[in-house]
Amino acid sequence: MRPVDLSAFIETLARQSGEAILPFFRTQMRVDDKDGHRFDPVTEADRAAEIVIRRAINAAFPTHGILGEEFEAERPDAEYLWVVDPIDGTRSFICGLPVWGTLIGLMRGGKPAMGLMNQPYTGEMFVGDGGKAWLKGPRGRRELQASQCKALADAYLMTTDPRLFRDGDGPAYARVESKVRLARYGTDCYAYAMLASGQVDLVIETGLKAYDIVALIPIIEGAGGVVTTWEGQSAKDGGRILAAATPELHEQALRALKG
Amino acid sequence: MRPVDLSAFIETLARQSGEAILPFFRTQMRVDDKDGHRFDPVTEADRAAEIVIRRAINAAFPTHGILGEEFEAERPDAEYLWVVDPIDGTRSFICGLPVWGTLIGLMRGGKPAMGLMNQPYTGEMFVGDGGKAWLKGPRGRRELQASQCKALADAYLMTTDPRLFRDGDGPAYARVESKVRLARYGTDCYAYAMLASGQVDLVIETGLKAYDIVALIPIIEGAGGVVTTWEGQSAKDGGRILAAATPELHEQALRALKG
Repeated sequence: MRPVDLSAFIETLARQSGEAILPFFRTQMRVDDKDGHRFDPVTEADRAAEIVIRRAINAAFPTHGILGEEFEAERPDAEYLWVVDPIDGTRSFICGLPVWGTLIGLMRGGKPAMGLMNQPYTGEMFVGDGGKAWLKGPRGRRELQASQCKALADAYLMTTDPRLFRDGDGPAYARVESKVRLARYGTDCYAYAMLASGQVDLVIETGLKAYDIVALIPIIEGAGGVVTTWEGQSAKDGGRILAAATPELHEQALRALKG
Repeated sequence: MRPVDLSAFIETLARQSGEAILPFFRTQMRVDDKDGHRFDPVTEADRAAEIVIRRAINAAFPTHGILGEEFEAERPDAEYLWVVDPIDGTRSFICGLPVWGTLIGLMRGGKPAMGLMNQPYTGEMFVGDGGKAWLKGPRGRRELQASQCKALADAYLMTTDPRLFRDGDGPAYARVESKVRLARYGTDCYAYAMLASGQVDLVIETGLKAYDIVALIPIIEGAGGVVTTWEGQSAKDGGRILAAATPELHEQALRALKG
């Protein structure tokens, strides 16, 4: 299969999952139902979207594997493995903020080969195909380019929640935050999209799963950024993640994390 | 002048200021210029938008007063006083996140009479006219209705940054946060729009200026919510602000803040 076909297919997955999710976003049904179960729009939307994505993959590529947040892995040892988080940014989704995203990544031979982050409410689709990265949005398509920021003192930093860093990771994160120009919280996957867009320069997180990061790696790298674990290893398995706009900034942040 | 005319006028202000701001949003021009001054898209966009708004108000209502963030007050003792923050949510704006807003409020005789929050990137306009409140967005117009949440244990809470609470305010805020179901950071004016939309139930902040809150009061109240200072007084002058979806929840949060 040619890469161009996969690019078109991954965008189809984004559109279909977006259509499955949007009816649950900003729903007014935050009430207990008759059986005493609270309506949970995230869980409902998560499941609906992952079912749509799995069905489409299985129909088009029955030999591909699928790793998703909501259901059991299918053919996890396949050459092509799709890695899916239908809603990354649960709190944003619950609270009505348009900064969650659907993450759809494709690994080939154990390496991230293509990735997409879709934000259906704003109509933004961030894509990396292993070469370039681009944004398709309501105002057209443009290539993504990370910033040229090379110094911590100039950097804008994002993390989802500083309270998530436990034990030694808290002081390590705080060392970086104390050196940057600005820190912004509460961003989830949208942080990496903004790094690839040149808006922010650093993202630092911990406790990520593979499905939280695989789709984002080709977007970050396609925009010229660098993303690894805090040990400088491949980010594909998740864990403690550091993304930076430039190799120089990445190196400085790694050093600050180590203390 | 009839209220319907003011409603149309305030939406015109939103559209014109949005057109002034959007060219600066997600700009790639984050570089030092030749004179060594860093390009500051927020300042540039703030000023451009406030100039547009002031010019339109002065042309249509030369006797009205204007209180804005960027320039000197004009006729602050007028019967009608416009209260304007061209970009509330500076960090979101800088970082490319679509959760900042333009706040345009109108006081009459010292009381908030009408308010609007505009998010031009997503095309969302939250409006309160002293009676109802509504959202005009890409998917049409709908009335806003705050949630029916009456208990802290069920509440979703938003604040811009928990580090902003100083001295005794930190523990007071923490008492409320420890009792709620979910807390979300980094939201600025968008938090109040989500409260009016029924998505979240509580917003707690400190250090607000009049122009950070006046425009939001008619939106919150028009949706059935309650907004006061931590002392239960009018929120119109800013300071320490508590907004809640219901009077019951507001009362519980006030008590928890007092300890």
